[in-house]
Amino acid sequence: MHLAARGHKVAGFDNFSRRRNVEKVGSTSATPIRGIEDRITVFDLVFREARGRITAKEGDLLDYSFTKDYIKWFKPDTIVHLGEQPSAPFSMVDREHAVYTQHNNVIGNLNLLYAIKEVVPDCHLLKLGTMGEYGYETELEIPEGFFEIEYKGKKATIPFPRIAGSWYHWSKVHDSNNIMFACKLWGLRSTDVMQGIVYGTRTKEMVTDELLTRFDFDECFGTAINRFCAQAVIGHKLTPYGKGGQTRGYLALADSVQCLTIATENPPEKGEYRVFNQLDQVYKIIDLAKTVQKVAQKFGLEVEIESVENPRVEKEEHIYKVQAEKLRNLGFKETRTLEDELAIMLTDLQRFKKRILAKKEVIMPKAYWREVSIQSAARRNQR
Amino acid sequence: MHLAARGHKVAGFDNFSRRRNVEKVGSTSATPIRGIEDRITVFDLVFREARGRITAKEGDLLDYSFTKDYIKWFKPDTIVHLGEQPSAPFSMVDREHAVYTQHNNVIGNLNLLYAIKEVVPDCHLLKLGTMGEYGYETELEIPEGFFEIEYKGKKATIPFPRIAGSWYHWSKVHDSNNIMFACKLWGLRSTDVMQGIVYGTRTKEMVTDELLTRFDFDECFGTAINRFCAQAVIGHKLTPYGKGGQTRGYLALADSVQCLTIATENPPEKGEYRVFNQLDQVYKIIDLAKTVQKVAQKFGLEVEIESVENPRVEKEEHIYKVQAEKLRNLGFKETRTLEDELAIMLTDLQRFKKRILAKKEVIMPKAYWREVSIQSAARRNQR
Repeated sequence: MHLAARGHKVAGFDNFSRRRNVEKVGSTSATPIRGIEDRITVFDLVFREARGRITAKEGDLLDYSFTKDYIKWFKPDTIVHLGEQPSAPFSMVDREHAVYTQHNNVIGNLNLLYAIKEVVPDCHLLKLGTMGEYGYETELEIPEGFFEIEYKGKKATIPFPRIAGSWYHWSKVHDSNNIMFACKLWGLRSTDVMQGIVYGTRTKEMVTDELLTRFDFDECFGTAINRFCAQAVIGHKLTPYGKGGQTRGYLALADSVQCLTIATENPPEKGEYRVFNQLDQVYKIIDLAKTVQKVAQKFGLEVEIESVENPRVEKEEHIYKVQAEKLRNLGFKETRTLEDELAIMLTDLQRFKKRILAKKEVIMPKAYWREVSIQSAARRNQR
Repeated sequence: MHLAARGHKVAGFDNFSRRRNVEKVGSTSATPIRGIEDRITVFDLVFREARGRITAKEGDLLDYSFTKDYIKWFKPDTIVHLGEQPSAPFSMVDREHAVYTQHNNVIGNLNLLYAIKEVVPDCHLLKLGTMGEYGYETELEIPEGFFEIEYKGKKATIPFPRIAGSWYHWSKVHDSNNIMFACKLWGLRSTDVMQGIVYGTRTKEMVTDELLTRFDFDECFGTAINRFCAQAVIGHKLTPYGKGGQTRGYLALADSVQCLTIATENPPEKGEYRVFNQLDQVYKIIDLAKTVQKVAQKFGLEVEIESVENPRVEKEEHIYKVQAEKLRNLGFKETRTLEDELAIMLTDLQRFKKRILAKKEVIMPKAYWREVSIQSAARRNQR
């Protein structure tokens, strides 16, 4: 919608697996989400000057002939690749979920690379990756994709190590590697966006409820911010995992859309594989919980914070320093603070409180990433 | 056979895709290869004291319930994972081959990791990787998997960058990454063997033709050494690709088997992800051609060397330095020189000259990794 409002023509295809997968974990979006055709109809009514600029179709990246034909029909200058299974906890449920995630993401992305090479070799592939690809194993400051090192007297610029922490995050690393290779092999051009965690219920184009983005709050598809907001709205304690020192980069949805627009309108050179770190602020999860608590209080929502056993295998305290200059150098400037955005989110979510209450059992973790030992399960049951 | 002769019990399963894939590229092994049951029967006859120690079955790592049941039945201490599509050129033929390779290798390996975790979590996974995972992009000396660097005043031990050069090699990088994660997540133990190029027609156990290993000489499954030997035997020029400065690590088959035996009998700690660089000598491809030429001459086989256009996307001249100490520290000592082994190979292959002659058109490259330009195709046709 943002690109169309700026004058771009936009065509999309989607297999709608996000909706199905959220249903499979027993949840739903807090914001009601209509079918894609209804959403486009509402967009055309609201944005009269942009009418007709958005089209969309059901289709799957795993279906190569569909993918190739769709790209052949639209002949895009830029492809924004958002078509991946995006949940780390979902990928960790069991073998089937791990295989589904790596298969869907790696093969879908490989099909897309071949379709670009075959049909639109000059097209810019803007691929959504995640800061989680780098992982949290070292205390090195994280550069944008590559860094110069010296080893045994030789200097070299090498990819910054990617040491991911879930089958999902590894699938994105595999994709990044495949894309880097395709750029070298065939001279494709790509921006690989290592995005922080995105939060928000709306961009400035989402002026009616029919146009809101989805808002997941279950343990798989809801991020910690989303879960805290949903908990605040229904009067549940905010439940960070473990010690709460897990530190991540964050970005408001509106600013994420701003970044993607900047990347789209400033493509890399042919053959270039460019990595952007896309985030504006870094928070510890416990500070995030405290900020949600504080903003919620302004709305009369009083909630406590109570840590729960961490279902994940991750460091709960660590140093985190990230370089994120390339997008700023191209003009990016954040337009929201966390507190501003949380106020908007809590306002929106209070209208959908009933929808959250109806599914409230999905917020707390049930999937433990490491085999649950008898002792640990027993401890949990005693609480 | 080597492990069984040393007293180990060995069970294997295979989907026999190598045989089918070599047939698909119009080729066959120079050495005739019988069915697995016949081979075991011959082994039992020849090695009476080891009779019954080897069993094998047809099965596929992509079939999780088969994989799990087979492992549950045999309860191995070590699993040597050789079940991957192993050809870089095969993976580069087209989209179908790329997808087949990454799907087969990544999902098969992921299934194996889950089966180990579920059934034999203490089992040692000995996974065959390749020196090609590191690639040839930098001039850094290649350590065994990890190296210590300093960046902006912080030190860290990180994985050495893997910058592979084909969809196949990337599939192995994806596997290595998934294995490293499984060791951390579930406490599995693994040796990831970055193996150089293996050459040879036999180990000391292969005392009759029925027990020889396969010897592929086509452009996909035959390595440069194999292709040069096959060319020498049929009186064809030896045809290195391009400038011939491509430098790689090599290892005789008998010494590869020695290394795998050492790794098997010296497993890593639980939770350890250990990387071995497994090679004994480093050669430029042009020097390899010259050595084959020289050894062939002793057998009265006079052949010229003539470079052909390189079908691959690779550096044709580069620095290459590799650390490979861990296996030596565990007792590895090479037993063959390249010249010794080439003499054995040419002796064996001369007996199968007719089989090579019958398929000789498969040796020269037909699959070009980068889109063939009109000019380049025209140049080739003028030759």
